[in-house]
Amino acid sequence: MKRIAIDMDEVIADLFTSQLTMFNNDYKENISPEDIMGKKLRHHRPDLTEELSNYLKQPTFFRDLEVIEDSQEVIKELSKHYEIFITTAAMEYPTSFTEKYEWLKKHFPFLNDMNFVFCGDKSIIHADYLIDDNVRHFKGFSGQGVLYTANHNINEIGYDRVNNWQEVKDYFSKRVK
Amino acid sequence: MKRIAIDMDEVIADLFTSQLTMFNNDYKENISPEDIMGKKLRHHRPDLTEELSNYLKQPTFFRDLEVIEDSQEVIKELSKHYEIFITTAAMEYPTSFTEKYEWLKKHFPFLNDMNFVFCGDKSIIHADYLIDDNVRHFKGFSGQGVLYTANHNINEIGYDRVNNWQEVKDYFSKRVK
Repeated sequence: MKRIAIDMDEVIADLFTSQLTMFNNDYKENISPEDIMGKKLRHHRPDLTEELSNYLKQPTFFRDLEVIEDSQEVIKELSKHYEIFITTAAMEYPTSFTEKYEWLKKHFPFLNDMNFVFCGDKSIIHADYLIDDNVRHFKGFSGQGVLYTANHNINEIGYDRVNNWQEVKDYFSKRVK
Repeated sequence: MKRIAIDMDEVIADLFTSQLTMFNNDYKENISPEDIMGKKLRHHRPDLTEELSNYLKQPTFFRDLEVIEDSQEVIKELSKHYEIFITTAAMEYPTSFTEKYEWLKKHFPFLNDMNFVFCGDKSIIHADYLIDDNVRHFKGFSGQGVLYTANHNINEIGYDRVNNWQEVKDYFSKRVK
């Protein structure tokens, strides 16, 4: 059985929408996703890099993230044909460990928590595929990287790309056959 | 540069001594390591499996563990020639995440926290070597397993074995040369 490693933030957990909403509220801004296409919010407001990072250090931030559309259904289906691991770069926000774990147990109860991985450098991941929104994690990864479209990575080229979970389903259903 | 993945509990963190001391104190016992050679404490007292597991769920338990002798010096030396990752099966005790992270930052400040991995099933680890006291983690591991001697694994045969950190040093110095 082949193995798919799946990132959390911006792949199954909608970090971007939460962060943008909090930012617009706190700074009386009205930035839309289109305004910052191709970059992260911290690149749009480098003067507020620390404040933006602080959102992610709030214990409740990760707990309350919305689930990305269709990810639950598609992962459940994929888990019949593939070994599924959730591999998240949690070391960047050590205060998030417990919330990330509880979020996964709540929203993906059908996954085995022995297959959750909190790491930093994802070259440590031994899998056939890695679905991730950050291309830096494909460097050194020994399997096939699959770029999950996020606002910030829209201009990246040269990778297998999926735009939503229905496309993830198609991508892998072709491979099983 | 080749990569060594290193387990925490019973390899760099002395979980066994702490657990045995607490157990003897709480249950007015006087069990020595020799009394339970070749097995874990929970196999010696299966009636107390849950109570023994509860020790590991106390938030302070992992924070206060002693460092295994010579592990700091040898890992520091090894890190000149190898990529070092710390790979711990933290998903078994989700309440331990923060304490394990802080313990590593305190006792191994020279390691990059991007190379810390909290996981469950270690077949996800992509490394050339895995130093671990639990042989079950070698099953499915794609590299070379190196069994670090612990009280409970003393009767395991068929593995490369190291009895202390000086032997780890010797094991890898031969390979670099």
